Amino acid sequence: MSYFKFEIIHQSRTSRARVGRIHTPHGVIDTPNFVAVGTNATLKALDTKMVHDIGLQLMFCNTYHLLLQPGVETIAQAGGLHTFMNRSLPIITDSGGFQVFSLAQGTVNDELKSRSNKRYEGSILKITEDGVLFRSYRDGQKILLTPETSIAAQKSLGADIIIPFDELLPNNVAYEHLTTSLHRTHRWEQRSLNAHRARPQNQAMYAVIHGGTDQRLRKLSCEFLTKLDFDGFALGGSLGKNHQEMFNLLDFVIPILPQDKPNHLLGIGDLRSLETVIKCGIDTMDSSHPTRCARHGFLFTNAGGIKILHSSNKQRFRPIDESCTCFTCQYYTAAYLHHLFKANELTGHTLATIHNLHYMVQIMAAYREKILHNEM
Amino acid sequence: MSYFKFEIIHQSRTSRARVGRIHTPHGVIDTPNFVAVGTNATLKALDTKMVHDIGLQLMFCNTYHLLLQPGVETIAQAGGLHTFMNRSLPIITDSGGFQVFSLAQGTVNDELKSRSNKRYEGSILKITEDGVLFRSYRDGQKILLTPETSIAAQKSLGADIIIPFDELLPNNVAYEHLTTSLHRTHRWEQRSLNAHRARPQNQAMYAVIHGGTDQRLRKLSCEFLTKLDFDGFALGGSLGKNHQEMFNLLDFVIPILPQDKPNHLLGIGDLRSLETVIKCGIDTMDSSHPTRCARHGFLFTNAGGIKILHSSNKQRFRPIDESCTCFTCQYYTAAYLHHLFKANELTGHTLATIHNLHYMVQIMAAYREKILHNEM
Repeated sequence: MSYFKFEIIHQSRTSRARVGRIHTPHGVIDTPNFVAVGTNATLKALDTKMVHDIGLQLMFCNTYHLLLQPGVETIAQAGGLHTFMNRSLPIITDSGGFQVFSLAQGTVNDELKSRSNKRYEGSILKITEDGVLFRSYRDGQKILLTPETSIAAQKSLGADIIIPFDELLPNNVAYEHLTTSLHRTHRWEQRSLNAHRARPQNQAMYAVIHGGTDQRLRKLSCEFLTKLDFDGFALGGSLGKNHQEMFNLLDFVIPILPQDKPNHLLGIGDLRSLETVIKCGIDTMDSSHPTRCARHGFLFTNAGGIKILHSSNKQRFRPIDESCTCFTCQYYTAAYLHHLFKANELTGHTLATIHNLHYMVQIMAAYREKILHNEM
Repeated sequence: MSYFKFEIIHQSRTSRARVGRIHTPHGVIDTPNFVAVGTNATLKALDTKMVHDIGLQLMFCNTYHLLLQPGVETIAQAGGLHTFMNRSLPIITDSGGFQVFSLAQGTVNDELKSRSNKRYEGSILKITEDGVLFRSYRDGQKILLTPETSIAAQKSLGADIIIPFDELLPNNVAYEHLTTSLHRTHRWEQRSLNAHRARPQNQAMYAVIHGGTDQRLRKLSCEFLTKLDFDGFALGGSLGKNHQEMFNLLDFVIPILPQDKPNHLLGIGDLRSLETVIKCGIDTMDSSHPTRCARHGFLFTNAGGIKILHSSNKQRFRPIDESCTCFTCQYYTAAYLHHLFKANELTGHTLATIHNLHYMVQIMAAYREKILHNEM
């Protein structure tokens, strides 16, 4: 018997959006919901308790980074990721594949997701049917990541939701290359699922739908992966060169996925995209966008973004957003945050991150409310 | 009528240490006590609420830094420093003189207090009877700091305890230079006091005793300054080349200060010094030592310091200090902190700082207890 269950509370009558509940061993995730990225087993500039208080129900941690530091053995010794970081709420981990490939490639993803790949160039040594051999950027050590080692790592981490090992291709690769990679990724996902099912540990596994921007290949990927016993579906790989291409792709893919399983959008969570991807039927989406914006002093409000370093905030002795109920807006003014950023005080990062994540929690609750009333 | 009052609860029978209470408009400071340094109107990596929860009763902010960023006009507009940073407990500010001089000089203080002076070299343009003309390191602007402008700034900041403008000399200057400077500092302190008394605003002012390591000059300074209407006394200037010289100096100076007024030791608060300076009769001491140690991963415990980056902590799945009741030790393990520091996560700075400051709060409470029992 699995603890994992996806329950649809309400299907909107005006779009593919739905309100649901994902049940996991560490509690419920109300959907649609935003998933914050805590790469190194912490959200940057926050501690686990703060994240809990903000009300973020699901947190994304990166297996690749945790593999290199502190190493999965250490986290296993601690009793798993939840105990290690003292998080009582649900966690999702990826396979490590995304980082190995994207950090080595420097693709369009770099621009879309603001990743710099300089230090990682050439870190992939060999890709075979078995998996990928790469060099750790921390100590130069050679590491072999395969479906089996990725799942073993994710078993040690013990997240509530895990992801099969896949290959991430650069944008604009030749069709033949895309096809070859897709088939190999499918075999890797099958092997990942086998490794997972051999030792389920109450974890759920989402397949990753690939196929880049090619509808035939996306369809092929859906057909292959939906036949297997996955608990949900994640959209991965290249989603297009711009928002419209991504929306078109989601419009095409979501309807051919099972309607009773949760859909996750990997690595997308910018404010512009939210409403549309939810209307496409996406239930959860992870992104470091709100937290990265916060650290750069870009704060979210219902009236638009605020650049906290702008001189108009120097003597704004009111909260960032007067209607906001977050810790930061309750206790501090925009003028004080402006000062903290001007003075390069880390405290500014903490307070800005709390505000933006609270904003995400609130906006997702508002979207759920709208869906319940068929208003989106 | 002044809100400021120093009340001696118990005078130790075995040393000059005493337990007291400093009453201020923003509450009581139990003495002896440690004063954390929040240079830019925040303790680094903590927000005001966290500092409050740790139980730090007095916080030191630096007028020099606040003068340059955000500027005292902004803080005045906010309603003062307490409102600006949302601190309800007492604050002490310095005159700005210490930073102007020490940052420009690169004296032995740099080593003792780990200050780097590289970017400030040559920032002092002129020292006259009026005050000191210096160049802002932020925007190159010329700023004249005099007793009157320093006190005006500290009136705008509105701290509970303020400090008169003084000159900080490098160590090992010629006796003649020391004497000339001391007399000018006395005139500056007198002018500072006049400016303060003209508009007391319920603030208290501590004199700064100077005279370097020369006992005759220290005595002269005590004689001059104790005749004036100061609320307490701070020990400033060069305190010697090592701990023993500082202790000897305190042993000489404290007995010639009024016994019924609080004594503050400027810029010293390392663990090695604490017990001895308290026994000398020091009531409060400020230092960035515990917070700077924390950010470098050096954590205080009753069993000695812990270097959190040391590999022995990699799998230490216990709190930093099992007997510690701080937020960090309640929620997180040494292994997790080790990981955060290894991964360069700011969260590590926050958690380590909370721990070290809690340690300071606890150790000062323990010292007060010992004094009450005449055990030190």
